[in-house]
Order: sequence, then structure tokens, then C-alpha cells
Amino acid sequence: MVLNIVHPEVDAVLICSPTNAHADQICAAAAAGKAIFCEKPVDLTLAKVRQTLSLVEDAGVPLMLAFNQRMDPSFSAVKSAIEQGRIGTLRSIHIISRDPAPPPISYIKSSGGMFLDMSIHDFDMARHLAGAAPIEVYARGANHIDPAIGAAGDIDSAYIMISFENGVTAMIENSRQAAYGYDQRLEAFGSEGMVRAENPLKTTTVLSNAEGIHGDRQLDFFIDRYTESYLREMRAFVDALKLGQPMPITGQDGLEAMYIALAAMSSHQERRPVLLSEC
Amino acid sequence: MVLNIVHPEVDAVLICSPTNAHADQICAAAAAGKAIFCEKPVDLTLAKVRQTLSLVEDAGVPLMLAFNQRMDPSFSAVKSAIEQGRIGTLRSIHIISRDPAPPPISYIKSSGGMFLDMSIHDFDMARHLAGAAPIEVYARGANHIDPAIGAAGDIDSAYIMISFENGVTAMIENSRQAAYGYDQRLEAFGSEGMVRAENPLKTTTVLSNAEGIHGDRQLDFFIDRYTESYLREMRAFVDALKLGQPMPITGQDGLEAMYIALAAMSSHQERRPVLLSEC
Amino acid sequence: MVLNIVHPEVDAVLICSPTNAHADQICAAAAAGKAIFCEKPVDLTLAKVRQTLSLVEDAGVPLMLAFNQRMDPSFSAVKSAIEQGRIGTLRSIHIISRDPAPPPISYIKSSGGMFLDMSIHDFDMARHLAGAAPIEVYARGANHIDPAIGAAGDIDSAYIMISFENGVTAMIENSRQAAYGYDQRLEAFGSEGMVRAENPLKTTTVLSNAEGIHGDRQLDFFIDRYTESYLREMRAFVDALKLGQPMPITGQDGLEAMYIALAAMSSHQERRPVLLSEC
Amino acid sequence: MVLNIVHPEVDAVLICSPTNAHADQICAAAAAGKAIFCEKPVDLTLAKVRQTLSLVEDAGVPLMLAFNQRMDPSFSAVKSAIEQGRIGTLRSIHIISRDPAPPPISYIKSSGGMFLDMSIHDFDMARHLAGAAPIEVYARGANHIDPAIGAAGDIDSAYIMISFENGVTAMIENSRQAAYGYDQRLEAFGSEGMVRAENPLKTTTVLSNAEGIHGDRQLDFFIDRYTESYLREMRAFVDALKLGQPMPITGQDGLEAMYIALAAMSSHQERRPVLLSEC
Repeated sequence: MVLNIVHPEVDAVLICSPTNAHADQICAAAAAGKAIFCEKPVDLTLAKVRQTLSLVEDAGVPLMLAFNQRMDPSFSAVKSAIEQGRIGTLRSIHIISRDPAPPPISYIKSSGGMFLDMSIHDFDMARHLAGAAPIEVYARGANHIDPAIGAAGDIDSAYIMISFENGVTAMIENSRQAAYGYDQRLEAFGSEGMVRAENPLKTTTVLSNAEGIHGDRQLDFFIDRYTESYLREMRAFVDALKLGQPMPITGQDGLEAMYIALAAMSSHQERRPVLLSEC
Repeated sequence: MVLNIVHPEVDAVLICSPTNAHADQICAAAAAGKAIFCEKPVDLTLAKVRQTLSLVEDAGVPLMLAFNQRMDPSFSAVKSAIEQGRIGTLRSIHIISRDPAPPPISYIKSSGGMFLDMSIHDFDMARHLAGAAPIEVYARGANHIDPAIGAAGDIDSAYIMISFENGVTAMIENSRQAAYGYDQRLEAFGSEGMVRAENPLKTTTVLSNAEGIHGDRQLDFFIDRYTESYLREMRAFVDALKLGQPMPITGQDGLEAMYIALAAMSSHQERRPVLLSEC
Repeated sequence: MVLNIVHPEVDAVLICSPTNAHADQICAAAAAGKAIFCEKPVDLTLAKVRQTLSLVEDAGVPLMLAFNQRMDPSFSAVKSAIEQGRIGTLRSIHIISRDPAPPPISYIKSSGGMFLDMSIHDFDMARHLAGAAPIEVYARGANHIDPAIGAAGDIDSAYIMISFENGVTAMIENSRQAAYGYDQRLEAFGSEGMVRAENPLKTTTVLSNAEGIHGDRQLDFFIDRYTESYLREMRAFVDALKLGQPMPITGQDGLEAMYIALAAMSSHQERRPVLLSEC
Repeated sequence: MVLNIVHPEVDAVLICSPTNAHADQICAAAAAGKAIFCEKPVDLTLAKVRQTLSLVEDAGVPLMLAFNQRMDPSFSAVKSAIEQGRIGTLRSIHIISRDPAPPPISYIKSSGGMFLDMSIHDFDMARHLAGAAPIEVYARGANHIDPAIGAAGDIDSAYIMISFENGVTAMIENSRQAAYGYDQRLEAFGSEGMVRAENPLKTTTVLSNAEGIHGDRQLDFFIDRYTESYLREMRAFVDALKLGQPMPITGQDGLEAMYIALAAMSSHQERRPVLLSEC
């Protein structure tokens, strides 16, 4: 299948394969001179990511890395509010991201670990919202959900504090399980206000009875929750290609988020705040 | 007790007695030249209300009628939004007012009927929000709750449509019982927007679980729901007295709301829209 | 185009043409023995609707009439709550349906009037939720928005009260224009509780600043608001066909809603409550 | 004034004086054998707190320390939900506490610093909700608001992560200023659900217009926000006295919260997680 991409009518390649195939497929597409859209991450090892991005750069082809959550209408409205100065000078960011249920242990084992696999979305989001480089990370992991996850050498719950160059602090919680559904929330606090994105619910129906008021469940998982963001990221990729504009999310963005994940891993293991400059 | 009001140190009389004592007490207070604050209604018969108000006018004493709901912070914010033009030209009003549980049958029997006893608050509110004279009323009553209420010659549910001189239409529902607590809501719709007052809840606590989200109950009844409005109406009465300003709610307001109630009664009995000019 | 429907591989015909083509296309499809899905209404004249439905019945083909709003996830959750007894015995229904902006005058002129064109969705919904036959309608129309609508012989605002056989009362407001977007709300009140469907917003983002809290706009119009209901009604049609089950919404449903609309027109013109038995 | 407390008709002493008077007044009341209610903190120095509490213990008089926020109806509903097992096994706690505006610099100077003065409420709340002893604290302070606060040697923003013995993690943000009003929110996440307490607003009024929906401001400050909690804590004190039951919040609770504050101060200064066992 990779061979077909050399066809002259192919302008761009969309890589949505398992992570361990990404780097090779990116290289093949770059070698064929094609624009590339790739699901995160480029790879789980820093060396291979750097090598792949360097090769893409040499090939001079555009590469968009799919941090789809940036394109979520509610989350991008938070970003816009910050950019438009509606909350003044940004001071802090809160992100809560909880999956409804943990993936199979087999997935956990080849995931690169919770920070690289799951938290990385929030690391990218925190960088994106902060609009500055991260300086220091303090991270704590825990095992609350399934002992098999711990036995596989991973954590299932993460608590992270990131300090950015511009004085912004991000506080992030991740959990591999939430009994009430997929929980994806953002908050940005600044000198003039605060802006939040709450979880959309399945319906707007509310029942009032003798016990109180009762609303519907949250959306089940990323397929429902981020439908619109997937459409928007594809549109953004195609638009950037057509207009010859820079990609909205780049391989470098993937690399930067990866540095935060690696710092978080070190912090968790060494129980101390870790400077990004150590990575 | 009425005798004491002639004391020169008494500036004003607050009448919070049962309805059938109101007219006499108002007359006594007026005769003594005292300012008067009286719970609604002045009386259940039109003739006595007119006679009492005429006597008050002759005595030249200020009279405030306690339609306390006008002073509720949320409801008065609705009125302010209308007055400030924030919804443009007013087109329609919706009021839902449901008690948690019906009063005793003994109370029902001497209440003057649901329209005069309960709906009258909403008739006053509709007039207040519409800012115009009512022209026509169409009302339907029903018995959904307790057959004893029907046996006592009253209804326990009411559905009312009022047309005002300025083209505004009000739709009102009243119920003597709501399993989920005291339900008091307003909505005003205009050419530029809509403004609503929702029910406050006992706490802001929300539980999310596998069934959905769950908030607290509404406040139980008028004592909790309208605490602030009672304080504000007393402050408004005293302020008006001190500053020599007109009373914010007058006996005439009581009379006008009573006309709507009487039109609603006729409409319900005769199953036809009734003009206020018929009353 | 109609001719092609006789092709043996055609199982069903979807009629989404202008209203004045519906009856003929239904007849052609019925004559060809095809299952029929048709946008509401069958026709604007009672005689032609009856004649068409009779012909469909004789042909023995299934016909689904597209009152899509019944399939809206939030509205069907309201219906489910009623059916499951979660609000006890139903007492009343409130429906507010306001379009963002009026259609062109040319559309108004051939629409059959606001009751038949717009309110009919709510008449169907009221019937659907009430689960009983309507007995009486009282309706008031008004012109608040564009004098050209009045000049075209139509109203742009409607206020309707419907009494059902089982004692349920429905209060409905319609407006051809709402400055804040497409407003589509339902409320059902019963002996044990109340269930409401509120308007979904474009995003869940909320800004808090010195003026208060600020949420996003409502969805713009039916294309956004009812996307899911259109998918669901098509699925329901296909499922019913495959399983040989009765259509979830029938031509008879269209006829019943039409009777309410005609009663509402008479009520508005004659300024009196109109019995369905008069139609 | 202190002298009067020996009067035999005095059963209890309420100490609501400036912090630097607390210890002496507690000692005087204890010496007089009176029950004591004291605003937090007992003192700003650990030695004096220990000494005072020891003296109270020797005197055998009850002492209630006024962490009033525990008595807030919404916050105590969060605690109840945890205790009743409604969210299963507790995993994490989030607290955001932001004042509307910083106190005067003179107050800052004698406050003991932000951790001891402001965050201490949240340290107590985190302990209260976690239901376990804290083990480790990681805290970062920042100066975002007023350089004069930094010049006075204090911070105006704090970000804190606390690990508890039972595996629970608390993430806390404090700010001395929020443009949108007093922001006091809690969230507790567990294996079966999540429970949150949101900010009450001044009214329930919501305006919908072309820009979106607009709600009222949050309550201004602790006097409005915690009115009910002050009433409840006084009732709880009197009830405990009358019934001879243990005080619901004790001097020991004050001491434990103080240890967290001291650990936070060390953590912030030394830029490392600090064990409670180091204090």
C-alpha cells in the first residue's frame, strides 16, 4: 500500500496506522514528496522522532500532526478567548481528562506509558493555551483502577503541574477510568476573567423530581466527543495545503509535547520537579 | 391591637393578618392617618376593595400592597432587562408558578378561589412586566390533584392567556402541587432577545455518575424562595415613606390584578375569552 | 423522475419536494406499490390529504410522514420519560418554537399560513406527548415582526392552548423570529415530576468576567438543530420496512395535526375556542 | 472585655478578634473554664499554637476552630456524597479558591503569608474531604497581581499538590484576585462518580441575545457567599455544647492544616516536594 503513494495524482498521505508504523510511513511519504497528515505520536522514542522530523524537513514536505483536540469547537473557543484578550493576561490553566474505561492491557504494554500515550494530548493543549515554552514539570502517578496496569509497569492516574516561561502554571489530572463517561474539561484563568469548556451531554433533557434535577450522561468516548474536531482537522490540513500555508500543528509540536511527557516520567520516577532543560 | 396604632410615635402600620381582616384594618389605619403596608389582597370582593381604596385615597395616606414577587432579585432583574431595552420590544411573557403542595381544604374554601388566591401573583407580574393594560383573558381550570378541591368548588390547575393593549401576550400556568418543589419561573421574549428567571436550587452541588448528572432540589416554598423579596419590599416601603416618594406597588395594582382574576373566573366558567371591559 | 420509481429494484420512495408536489408523487409511488417517506404536509387542503391517504390505504403501501422532531434525541427523551412514568400522570405540556428569522414573503404566501406551516410541528408534538386526542383549541395570532407578513394575510406570532381528552393542556408559543437563534423547547409536567428539553448551544464554553457569565449562542436553524433527528427518522423508516413493522409516524398523524391547525385558524379568526368536533 | 468572661452566666466565649489576640484570649477563656469558639488560626507560630492547644486540653474545655467553609451547604453536600459512598472510592480532589481582590498590603504583611492566611482554608477542606493524613506537599507560588505583594515578601497566586495516606491527591489553586468575583469551587472524583460544588450566582436570570446567553455575576465575597455557613457553624457549636458532644472542628484540625501550610511554604522556597514528616 505504501508503494501506491508515489502515484502522481496523490497529493497527500494520511497516516492513521498503529504508532509503530508511523515513522517508516512518514519517511516513505516524505521520500515520495507527498504532504503528510499523521496521527500522534510520530514515534515513542525521542531519537526516532528527531530523525524522522529531520528527514521530513530535508524533503521539504508539509507535515501535520493530529492533535485533534485543538480543533474541538469548545476548546478552540477557549483558545480564541485567550487570544482575543477576553480574560486579560493568562495566569493558569486547568485540564481534566478522564477516559471512560482503560484500554486492554496489551495496548497499555505497547503504549509508551500513560504520560506519552494519554497525557500527551493535554501537554499539547497546555502548551497551545499557554502560548509559551514549558520550563518545569512536577508529576505524580498512581494506580487506582486495575492492578494489572501496575503489573504492566504503567500508572492509571496522573497529576501534573507545569510551569511555563511566561509565568503560567498548568494543573492537569488524567484518569484511565471515569464511571460517568468521558470527561474532558479545560479552564483558563486570567487577569480579566476565566473561560471554561464543559462536557457536552447526550441530550439537553432534564428531569425534576422529589430527589432533585437529573440531566443526561456525558458523551461516551472520543468518537462521539471529538467528531467535529476530526472533521475540522482534516479541513485544516486540506486548506493549508491548498493555500500553501504552514500546517496548523507540526511535527515540532509533537516533539515539544513529547519532551513534557518525558519530563513527567522522570519527575514521577524521581519524585522531584524536572526542568525541561534536563531533557 | 388596632387601637394602638393611633399612638403618635407610630408612623406606619403593617397588615399581615388573614385576608378577611385586611379591609377593616386598612380603614382603621387610614382613619388614624398612618401609612399602610398590606399583604395582598385588600379583600376578596370587588365592592369592598373599591370602597377601601377610596377611603384610603380620601385619607391621603400612602398604601403599599405587598406583591412581594416583584421584589425578588431574579424577577426584578427580568423587569430591569425589559426596561433597559435589552430584549428590544416585548412580545410575550411566560409564567409558570407551581406550589409544592395544596393548602388545607379549609383554606381553599375561604381563599376566593385559585385565580384570586394564587394566580393573582402572576396576574400582577404579567401586568408589571407587560407595562400595559390587559384587554382580554382566556382561562381554563382543571382538577388534577385532589378531588376534595373540586368538591369545595375550586380548581387546582389553571392555564391562562392574557392579551395586553400593547400587543403583548402572557401565557401562565399554575398548579397547586409540584412533586419536585416550589416552581417559580418567568420568561420575557422580545424583538432583540429573551430573558428568563429560573428556579434557584438548594445547593450548587452536582453529582455525575453512570446514570447522568444530578443536581439538588429546588427551594421548598415561598419562605425560602422569597426571603430576599420580603426584605426588599419592607425596605422599599420604608424608603418610599422616608423620601416621600410614591409607593412602588399600590392598592390600584391590587385592584387591576383582581380584575384579571375575575375575568379569568368568568372565562373559565363560560368557556370563552372575556374582555376586561366586561368586568 | 417520477417514472423511474417503477423500477423493480426501487423498494421505497423518499418525497422531499415542495409541498404542492407531494400528493401527486405519493399517488404515483403508491400506484407503483412502493413504500413512501414524505416530508410534511401531504397537502395544504384537507380534501386532497384525505383523498391521498385513502388512495395509499387502498394501495396497501406503507407511508411515513416526516415529523422529524419526534426523533430528536432530547425530545424523544422527554417522550420516553413520560412513557416510563417518570413524571407520573401527565398534566400539561409547554412548547416554545421560535425560528431565527422569517422566510421570504413568497414562501409565506404559499405556506398555507403559520398554523399549517410552522405550528403544525408543535401540534404533532403536543399530540405525541399527550398521547390522547385533542378536544378544543384556543389560538391567538399576532404580527410583531414584519408588516409584509400581515399584508400577505398571515400572522408571525402564535399563542395556542389545546385541551386533550385525557385532561392534559398544552400551551404553545410560536414566533417567526428570535434574535438569539433557533429556540426549540419542550416541557412536560406530571404528578411526580417535570421533564424539559432545553436548547443545545454551539459550544460548552463559558466566559466569566466582571459582567457575569457568558455562554455561546444556540444552534442557528433546523439543519444544525435537527441533524440527528433527520438521520434517525431515515433509520426508523428503513428499519420499519425491513422488519415489516408499522411506520412510526403515519399519514393519519399528519391529518390529525392538520385538524388542530384548522381549528387554530378558526379560533384565531373567530376569537373563540374551537372544538375539534367542529372541523 | 476579657475580664467579663469569668461571669458565671457566661457559658462560652466567641473569639473573633485579630489573629494576634487569639492565643491570649483562648488561654484566658480556658482559664475561666469556658467553652471556646475561635476564628482560625489559633496563632501564626507553631510553638504558640501547640502551647495554647495544650493549655486548652489541660483545662478540659471544648474548643471549636472556625473553618466555616466545612459548613457551607454545597461543600458539606460534597462531603456527604463522599461519606455515603455515592462516588465510590475517592481518588482525587480539586479546589479552586480565588478572592475578588487582594487585601491591603498592611494586612498582607501581618497575615503570615498566603499559604497560612488564605490557602489554609483549602488545606483544611482537602484534609476534611480526603479523610486521611497528608504525606507530601508540592507547592508553587507566583506574583501575578500586585508587585507590592511581592515587595512585602508574599505571593499572590499558589498552586499546590497534596498526597494523602490513602492514595488521594488534592490539586489546589489560590489567587488573591479574580475579576469575575469570589470563586470557590470543589470537585471530588472517585471510582463510581464525581461530585462538584459550583459558584452560586446573584440571581438565576439569564439573557439570550445575538451574542449568546448571559447569566449574572457570582456573589461578591465571603460575607455573601458564606452567610449560611456562618449560621451553621454557630448552630453546630451551640448544639455540641448543649449535647455534650465533641466539637465538629477542633484545635487539632487547625494544627494539621497549619502543618500543610508550613510544608507548602518550604516546598515553594526549596522548589521540591516536602514530606509532612519533615515538619
